[in-house]
Amino acid sequence: MRDAALLCYGFAGLGLMGGSLAQAIREKVLTKGTGRIFAVDRNSWTLAGAIDAGVIDTGFQPEESRRMLEQCDVVFVCLYPKQTIEFLKKERMFFKKGSLVTDISGVKGTLDTHLDAILTGDFDFVSTHPMAGSEKEGFTHASAQIFANRNYIIVPHPKNKPENIAFLKNLMTAVGFTRMIETDAETHDAKIAFTSQLCHIIASVLVDSAEDTNITSFGGGSFEDLTRIAMINAPLWTELFLSNREKLLDRIDSFEKSLCRVKKMVEEADYASLCRLLEDIRAKRIEMGRKDKR
Amino acid sequence: MRDAALLCYGFAGLGLMGGSLAQAIREKVLTKGTGRIFAVDRNSWTLAGAIDAGVIDTGFQPEESRRMLEQCDVVFVCLYPKQTIEFLKKERMFFKKGSLVTDISGVKGTLDTHLDAILTGDFDFVSTHPMAGSEKEGFTHASAQIFANRNYIIVPHPKNKPENIAFLKNLMTAVGFTRMIETDAETHDAKIAFTSQLCHIIASVLVDSAEDTNITSFGGGSFEDLTRIAMINAPLWTELFLSNREKLLDRIDSFEKSLCRVKKMVEEADYASLCRLLEDIRAKRIEMGRKDKR
Repeated sequence: MRDAALLCYGFAGLGLMGGSLAQAIREKVLTKGTGRIFAVDRNSWTLAGAIDAGVIDTGFQPEESRRMLEQCDVVFVCLYPKQTIEFLKKERMFFKKGSLVTDISGVKGTLDTHLDAILTGDFDFVSTHPMAGSEKEGFTHASAQIFANRNYIIVPHPKNKPENIAFLKNLMTAVGFTRMIETDAETHDAKIAFTSQLCHIIASVLVDSAEDTNITSFGGGSFEDLTRIAMINAPLWTELFLSNREKLLDRIDSFEKSLCRVKKMVEEADYASLCRLLEDIRAKRIEMGRKDKR
Repeated sequence: MRDAALLCYGFAGLGLMGGSLAQAIREKVLTKGTGRIFAVDRNSWTLAGAIDAGVIDTGFQPEESRRMLEQCDVVFVCLYPKQTIEFLKKERMFFKKGSLVTDISGVKGTLDTHLDAILTGDFDFVSTHPMAGSEKEGFTHASAQIFANRNYIIVPHPKNKPENIAFLKNLMTAVGFTRMIETDAETHDAKIAFTSQLCHIIASVLVDSAEDTNITSFGGGSFEDLTRIAMINAPLWTELFLSNREKLLDRIDSFEKSLCRVKKMVEEADYASLCRLLEDIRAKRIEMGRKDKR
């Protein structure tokens, strides 16, 4: 396997995720070795800041991206899902021979339908979803720490080289991820509709249904914890929700049904049923936490 | 004002909240001075543990509670809401002359209707709701730290002595609370139905609607954060929900309406409306955080 400390890494998009991954690779992978980090971003102020901070070596304007790509052994496409597909289609001829290209898209179904058309050059594209983030956006809020103990999902394609998947797993372990999951696009999107998208919808709806913004003087931590992710990147999440519409709607339906059941128990002041259900839910959540620690 | 370091404190109930308050008073108020802490609890193992840990000086069995109460300058009734009312009714003749009695009940409406009958002896009862807690129960999980930067709600009664309210505010500031809110029982219960009760319902429903307990391998932190409070103390929360039924049902209704609106936007793939709504929600949540820091 190639020595990760000696490679040239390229980032297409240096926002919160690209910036955090670049920082983590700088701090945890390139401590010794001659490896370099390049980035292309439409915001030249971001590039200058990232050079100043010692995170990247060289910045490129979008129109210079080919000049960057032809030098990179590993490319992280850290753009919105639709932009990612456009970028891969447009730039696929310019990736360095033998290079490994990867992404961070939060939905995989749409990308999956384009992969046969994209995977035509002498490079390997491994689709992944690093399950980490922040309610704050942009390189300014990037942090190498957000990946600690997180899940890294890989959605392999039949054309992917096993050594590239193995390389990515090693690299991402160094970055901080502790659990590597391989799955298909369909399963990924169904699970993510629940763990990520439904949670963002619920948090947003909670804030939406608050009668005023003074409510937190009556907060005890629960409301604050549940709604932190409602400080949402609206264009990104609207795209994610609508790209995974059917699966998300399924999960909203199940949630509504369960809420309706609980509401009925409250309406009927059915102490026994409600208490038993809450006991079951508590046991289920504790079991989830236990599995999570394995 | 009386010197808090010289007083005798009594706890009726040494669970998570009673235990945490006792620890905080021990660590932050009784560092110097001759003050003591007593506690009555039905679990004699808890009392022995609290003495061993140096948190309380003496423990009392429930049948000995009068012997404790007659010595205490300040009494914290840290029981479930209904038990609190029963305790106050049963023991009100035995509080020390001039003592200050307080509670921690998460609903105030029912208690409020009993107060005229309770407030008949030569003691003052100030009803409060320390907005802090944990998803873990019992003295074993008690911690003096849970009150740091939290809200302390006081629901004053016309009979309360201003000096006792002032004393409590000072004491609770020493314990760690940073914001003191005075309100009436009606307002308290309406606000708490949203910030606390609805959040516990939502978290529980999210866990309930999960198809299996393996789902956290696809988690990125959001699901985990949103559902931590679903590790709920079922009997306590069932009582809280049902004691505040109408107000809670109102809040569930508003939440359902808002969820329905968002769902419709997703169904209709209405990018513009959904993105605009999420922008508004983001701004609302950021404003809440800003007010919270004041």
